Amino acid sequence: AEQNGLIHGVSAAELQVLCEKCIEAKVVAYCPYSLFRVGASLLLHTSSTSSSSPPIITGANVENASYPVGTCAERVAMGTAIVSGHKLGSFKAIGVSTDMDDFCSPCGMCRQFLREFLELHVPIFMFNREGKFIVRTMEELLPLSFGPNKLPPREELKKVQEEEKAKIA
Amino acid sequence: AEQNGLIHGVSAAELQVLCEKCIEAKVVAYCPYSLFRVGASLLLHTSSTSSSSPPIITGANVENASYPVGTCAERVAMGTAIVSGHKLGSFKAIGVSTDMDDFCSPCGMCRQFLREFLELHVPIFMFNREGKFIVRTMEELLPLSFGPNKLPPREELKKVQEEEKAKIA
Amino acid sequence: AEQNGLIHGVSAAELQVLCEKCIEAKVVAYCPYSLFRVGASLLLHTSSTSSSSPPIITGANVENASYPVGTCAERVAMGTAIVSGHKLGSFKAIGVSTDMDDFCSPCGMCRQFLREFLELHVPIFMFNREGKFIVRTMEELLPLSFGPNKLPPREELKKVQEEEKAKIA
Amino acid sequence: AEQNGLIHGVSAAELQVLCEKCIEAKVVAYCPYSLFRVGASLLLHTSSTSSSSPPIITGANVENASYPVGTCAERVAMGTAIVSGHKLGSFKAIGVSTDMDDFCSPCGMCRQFLREFLELHVPIFMFNREGKFIVRTMEELLPLSFGPNKLPPREELKKVQEEEKAKIA
Ligand SMILES: [Zn+2]
Ligand SMILES: [Zn+2]
Ligand SMILES: [Zn+2]
Ligand SMILES: [Zn+2]
Repeated sequence: AEQNGLIHGVSAAELQVLCEKCIEAKVVAYCPYSLFRVGASLLLHTSSTSSSSPPIITGANVENASYPVGTCAERVAMGTAIVSGHKLGSFKAIGVSTDMDDFCSPCGMCRQFLREFLELHVPIFMFNREGKFIVRTMEELLPLSFGPNKLPPREELKKVQEEEKAKIA
Repeated sequence: AEQNGLIHGVSAAELQVLCEKCIEAKVVAYCPYSLFRVGASLLLHTSSTSSSSPPIITGANVENASYPVGTCAERVAMGTAIVSGHKLGSFKAIGVSTDMDDFCSPCGMCRQFLREFLELHVPIFMFNREGKFIVRTMEELLPLSFGPNKLPPREELKKVQEEEKAKIA
Repeated sequence: AEQNGLIHGVSAAELQVLCEKCIEAKVVAYCPYSLFRVGASLLLHTSSTSSSSPPIITGANVENASYPVGTCAERVAMGTAIVSGHKLGSFKAIGVSTDMDDFCSPCGMCRQFLREFLELHVPIFMFNREGKFIVRTMEELLPLSFGPNKLPPREELKKVQEEEKAKIA
Repeated sequence: AEQNGLIHGVSAAELQVLCEKCIEAKVVAYCPYSLFRVGASLLLHTSSTSSSSPPIITGANVENASYPVGTCAERVAMGTAIVSGHKLGSFKAIGVSTDMDDFCSPCGMCRQFLREFLELHVPIFMFNREGKFIVRTMEELLPLSFGPNKLPPREELKKVQEEEKAKIA
């Protein structure tokens, strides 16, 4: 994964910003129920930002009294990014951080949400409380993923189901 | 609801911006599965923004190949807002728009998500394709809501459950 | 709502079972994170069950370490019901119960999930710890709902969006 | 993975039932929006069922007009199982099937939901339309998972956050 001083294509300077920004993002987490603050940062390819806008978009978890209705840091960050005009191909790396000494990974729901917009080789850095990290690619975190190419068009599904009915009748 | 030329406290000029911004937000919707574009706009109280930042935050729906993993325009907008530092008390009005002639309301999940950050009197404007609207307050859209004050502290719940066990034993 | 000794069409005997079953269902709640046990019960129309099967289907909340991934009692019960072959028109009344003295209502996400399978007049009984209740219809809990009839066919949406593009070009 | 004629501990006869039941379950899928029918089956350890009850619990996807509110086959099946009294340790294998010739995996949200109740070695069989399959363990589908042991107690989180505040002050 390390080559020419880059980790999965990310420079030391970029990694530094990715780390700082997702640790910083934890401060705005709204998590009165779990008290588990999570920050996320998305590093954009330079080409996908204008020079004035920052190359990082951040998010934090936003909980709800009805737990299943809340959302995670990674999804808040990615939602903000998509609405800012970014898309599949815009993202160079993802950062996630918590208040733990241990390294925490994105939950399965966030892996699935990210999968729609990340190429399989994009690295996801998991930072602990002190900024140390482990890193895995999108594909490593969600192997055999159910990605956008997996859902067949309605027309095809209709045909399969009609064939099946015909067989039974 | 109308008083002194205001609708639920919102001026004609504010309503105009709320409408334009949520119609504009639809353009960035990522909805290859439903093709149902939704835009959302959040009008902030002037006091909760610095003079330079815009008084409106927007969002659009972001779908996923696994349908339940996607999210709605209203939640994307509110997630962005919370991460920008806004909170309960920051919001003056909400706007939602679709491509329909009919007026579409926020889904129940979004009503619940919004409830955490909106006072019960905050108006939610539902704009149709042409910018005509109907309006309801947070309370009208989610009566008898399960809000943040409804979830009892763990300590209290623990006590109730221990009492119950003692009764059975 | 009360007529001929029935409350929203539900007899005293049926209400008794609805209450008992949703209070009983709380026991199997998996809620190590919130400790907030919720039970749900679905009363079926007699016509939609065979004589041998019970006229009530129950559920309880099932939480997850990633809070947004968990699910509520009402949705577990309704998922079980749909997979058992029931559908729109099968349900006569819904019951929900918690460990509180206060009456707790279904969260907005559950109201939306239920809406797909409940007619607007179906009553939802909210039981407190002791079995006392308040009751509201589906329509009262989710007014102006975004129901199954609201989502337009993809073909129609495609047409609207193409018209719009043509106007801009 | 194959040993003594067993695949991940599952016999040919059990695998046959797992396959048939999850293909059968697709019939009750409620998926008017995607038309993508999914069936799921959960094979229980014999010890965790009484002799009269069936050793398999099934589910199918249940969609909603608001796409994010719907749920997947795997979660419906597991919700039913938990409410039937099963728990971590009760499950021997999981089956998932679709109408495709291709093999489809559970979405990330379902992997996360299942993770709460499956040991890491439990196999998940993905059946195609004709009953052919590929198989992966829970751990293979959700590596480095955010499981129940990962979420620290509120007390610990409170302490970390207070320490941090003290440092800043
Ligand atoms: Zn997550
Ligand atoms: Zn919504
Ligand atoms: Zn709920
Ligand atoms: Zn799923």
